[in-house]
Amino acid sequence: MPTDTRGQSGGGRTDGGAPGGRTGRDRVRPLELREAEVVLLDQTKLPTRVEYVRALSVEDVARAIETMVVRGAPAIGIAAAYGLALHAAFSEACTPDAFLEDFEAAAERLARTRPTAVNLFWAIERMKRTAREAVREAVGAGAPGGRPWLEVVRDRLRAEALEIAGADERGNRRLGRYGQALLPRRCRVLTHCNAGALATGGYGTALGIIRAAVEAGKEVSVLVDETRPLWQGARLTAWELMEEGIPATLITDSMAGWFMARGEVDAVIFGADRIAANGDVANKIGSYSLAVLADAHGIPCYSAAPLSTVDLETESGEDIVIEERPAEEVARPYGLEIAPPGIAVANPAFDVTPARLITAIVTDAGVARPPYEKSLAALFERS
Amino acid sequence: MPTDTRGQSGGGRTDGGAPGGRTGRDRVRPLELREAEVVLLDQTKLPTRVEYVRALSVEDVARAIETMVVRGAPAIGIAAAYGLALHAAFSEACTPDAFLEDFEAAAERLARTRPTAVNLFWAIERMKRTAREAVREAVGAGAPGGRPWLEVVRDRLRAEALEIAGADERGNRRLGRYGQALLPRRCRVLTHCNAGALATGGYGTALGIIRAAVEAGKEVSVLVDETRPLWQGARLTAWELMEEGIPATLITDSMAGWFMARGEVDAVIFGADRIAANGDVANKIGSYSLAVLADAHGIPCYSAAPLSTVDLETESGEDIVIEERPAEEVARPYGLEIAPPGIAVANPAFDVTPARLITAIVTDAGVARPPYEKSLAALFERS
Repeated sequence: MPTDTRGQSGGGRTDGGAPGGRTGRDRVRPLELREAEVVLLDQTKLPTRVEYVRALSVEDVARAIETMVVRGAPAIGIAAAYGLALHAAFSEACTPDAFLEDFEAAAERLARTRPTAVNLFWAIERMKRTAREAVREAVGAGAPGGRPWLEVVRDRLRAEALEIAGADERGNRRLGRYGQALLPRRCRVLTHCNAGALATGGYGTALGIIRAAVEAGKEVSVLVDETRPLWQGARLTAWELMEEGIPATLITDSMAGWFMARGEVDAVIFGADRIAANGDVANKIGSYSLAVLADAHGIPCYSAAPLSTVDLETESGEDIVIEERPAEEVARPYGLEIAPPGIAVANPAFDVTPARLITAIVTDAGVARPPYEKSLAALFERS
Repeated sequence: MPTDTRGQSGGGRTDGGAPGGRTGRDRVRPLELREAEVVLLDQTKLPTRVEYVRALSVEDVARAIETMVVRGAPAIGIAAAYGLALHAAFSEACTPDAFLEDFEAAAERLARTRPTAVNLFWAIERMKRTAREAVREAVGAGAPGGRPWLEVVRDRLRAEALEIAGADERGNRRLGRYGQALLPRRCRVLTHCNAGALATGGYGTALGIIRAAVEAGKEVSVLVDETRPLWQGARLTAWELMEEGIPATLITDSMAGWFMARGEVDAVIFGADRIAANGDVANKIGSYSLAVLADAHGIPCYSAAPLSTVDLETESGEDIVIEERPAEEVARPYGLEIAPPGIAVANPAFDVTPARLITAIVTDAGVARPPYEKSLAALFERS
């Protein structure tokens, strides 16, 4: 059981046994729920090493989220759902009340991992609701076919977690189709961080749009922001795009404006970790700068995310908690000492792009345009 | 003699023997001309190691410039001047014509090192002019005091190179005083790359303004852009500011906009590698994005450089050659594999900020304001 998922050779690691095999698209599937474990592709090791972390408990899953073995708002939500299904599978509670109490404690542990992405809380809430319903039904109606109530509840939670993942991938494919319609036939897209298959249940949001555009026969090339401090663009997005054979050029984050000025960017597309009711978008640090730069150059800027990323209870971006991550990620990336010891460091993991800089929000339920209060609410009503 | 100045343990290195000692301000002096060598602080090794490279020939100096052992537009100019003085010191030419021919060939080698910073060409031209004058005078008038003409020419070139360096530092101190007057009493400055003592003959341009403001009793804190791909901000600027005890916080380049949006930046100050007659500023990649972001947030954006960085023969930024540097700097910084092998990479070392985004250009001859065609020309007339 891996206790430190960033360790170089944890006992619980496997280098084979990839979820669903290792060929083609299956390679870029970030996590899988098995009978007695959650297997996570270790995204901190890509692209140099394809390693998997086996999480055998909620605590393992929580640490995998905290250390960013798994990252990306939708994937974090799925990981939490899988973690809770796993927790239920191991439960030996004698009573429904004991089960629910223990289940809620596990949910709380997961909710403490990362504060910004709303999909985490959304998935946890959905699993908690399912647990309560399943317990009520199983106990109230009597176990069907004489099966023990706990077994029924476990199965129900497992099915729900798998449905969250499956629906995410199906949703991404819809999102991709909606989004690709916004792109011209020949198109150079700038993207930031990784909003691809690795960040989701599969296919991706921002990269899903790019995949869908390529599938629709469009000629797309991608400028990939490296995305400091953790290089999700260089490590993950570049890797996904190369796997798919989509032309990609890696740049540092600081180059984006210069490429826009030279007329080499037709659209900016990034994901979202939380979208407020007014359309403000919290996403990986650097997204805000890109949106300002796109605006200054008259380039459309799209945020792509499943509707579960939209949090109608968050009125505006001002209400979104921004996670501050360890200084070492900036000053000592992967142990490389690039700054004098003791230097003060700021490391906000996300920023908030105000709605006025977002040309459209592309979701699995359709495309929202300003004013977002109305258009986002309408998507919820329709979905 | 170090042939590969990026090697880990070149035979020609010294870890002691720092130019001018190792205490206080002297620590941040990037290069020194000695009798038979140019000693350069290896800026690729900072901040973890303080090592010096001993250049024994023009070829050594040229490689030190190419590999960025020495960098920063003014420092590159000084390095070239020192290299040519060194070359003259070793000359055994029998005739003035042979001397000049060989000297011009050495100058040409240095001119091929890096294309963007104009100070390099300015310093080389100045040394060539001095060589021709010195030869003409020494030969024409007969060597004074019976000294051989070559000895006289060597001394003259050495004095000229030292004067270029000395004038640069004196100029920086003037520049600092002009620039600090632009800053409020309490001020948070964002800077990019390193335009400090390490980039110049001493004191610095952008950092010179910050130093001068502190010396004038102002309360200055600095946000330091790490400056990918080569981390001059994290490695060099953070180090210089810590040495001086000036409060500094390191951020990734992608965070700049977010800190501006949060009202935590009062001014942006960066250096310049070449300033066109119309005020367009070529500087380290990322400067352009900062200028656009500053403009969008109503924050003044200053470029600080000696007048020798202004190239009146370059009409506008469009005429400036932008150096493209190796892909490895982006994809494998210091050997760290952050991207999949074979990924396409763009690595322009500089960008051009149009004059309209520059609030003022601070030089050693005074502060230029728009329209720059007039104000820059006026500074040349006055100087």
